[in-house]
Amino acid sequence: MKVAILLENLFDEREFIYPYYRLQEEGYETVALAPKRGTYRGKSGFEVKADAAIGEVVGDDFVGLVIPGGYAPDRLRRYPEVLEFVRKMDEAGKPIAAICHAGWVLISARIVKGRRMTGFFAIKDDLINAGAEYVDEPVVVDGNLITSRHPGDLKVWMKEYIKHLPKGS
Amino acid sequence: MKVAILLENLFDEREFIYPYYRLQEEGYETVALAPKRGTYRGKSGFEVKADAAIGEVVGDDFVGLVIPGGYAPDRLRRYPEVLEFVRKMDEAGKPIAAICHAGWVLISARIVKGRRMTGFFAIKDDLINAGAEYVDEPVVVDGNLITSRHPGDLKVWMKEYIKHLPKGS
Repeated sequence: MKVAILLENLFDEREFIYPYYRLQEEGYETVALAPKRGTYRGKSGFEVKADAAIGEVVGDDFVGLVIPGGYAPDRLRRYPEVLEFVRKMDEAGKPIAAICHAGWVLISARIVKGRRMTGFFAIKDDLINAGAEYVDEPVVVDGNLITSRHPGDLKVWMKEYIKHLPKGS
Repeated sequence: MKVAILLENLFDEREFIYPYYRLQEEGYETVALAPKRGTYRGKSGFEVKADAAIGEVVGDDFVGLVIPGGYAPDRLRRYPEVLEFVRKMDEAGKPIAAICHAGWVLISARIVKGRRMTGFFAIKDDLINAGAEYVDEPVVVDGNLITSRHPGDLKVWMKEYIKHLPKGS
């Protein structure tokens, strides 16, 4: 079973690397999806090659979606095809894990209104203005949406997220 | 319970970040130990601040040891206090996880002779010349020593390593 992880420049290295390998350990195939094929650089310069462009895949092929933070979310939200992918995954009720600044993507995908969630404190106002109920907790679950604040929450974020995925192989 | 992770410049980002958070998720406190206090940079520039200098701690306080790869092992093996720490952890039978180029540290700590293990293929000759029985497998267990070849093995390396640690909190 495949889990999509969104990729753009300036991703936070920890927030990409940890779920990428953690979900593999749990038996899932992790697929790095970017707006275009090619290699992307994290905030510190760590490079990751996209497995596919987001326009080349369909949500039906994935059982879940992970959105790392850093400044990658500011890039990702500029692409209608990214937002459509996120919205469709949410409509299908598939587990979405978002951390740190990833809330920006959720805001532009128009899926935060009325939802209980967290995120990096710098984007608290953006989340509230978009209609979210913002709480300052390490991990917050609202249906299929699992959100955390920063890299210090990685351990509880993934532990919770894995519970919501269909059982890996 | 604390697990030590060795830190030096030019570490492989994935091989440091993944075990660092994975063991936290499992309930352990991860402690980045470096030759000196300060901040160290991975191969791509990702920075990690050491939690303590290796001369400031005693092995008795740790239930296990992780040695990431990259070129950090070439730096780490230059310090007698690092090698002594590794040797004592091994003598105490505590689980040691080593990946990629980490075998260089094990060689200089004089603990590879007669042991079945793996590592990055570039250092295969060094391991064999030091008396190891080199095998090309994703993860190899020899008593308390758990070795893997490269980042593609992270998922099996940590899965196996966790089985050897005393139960986390």
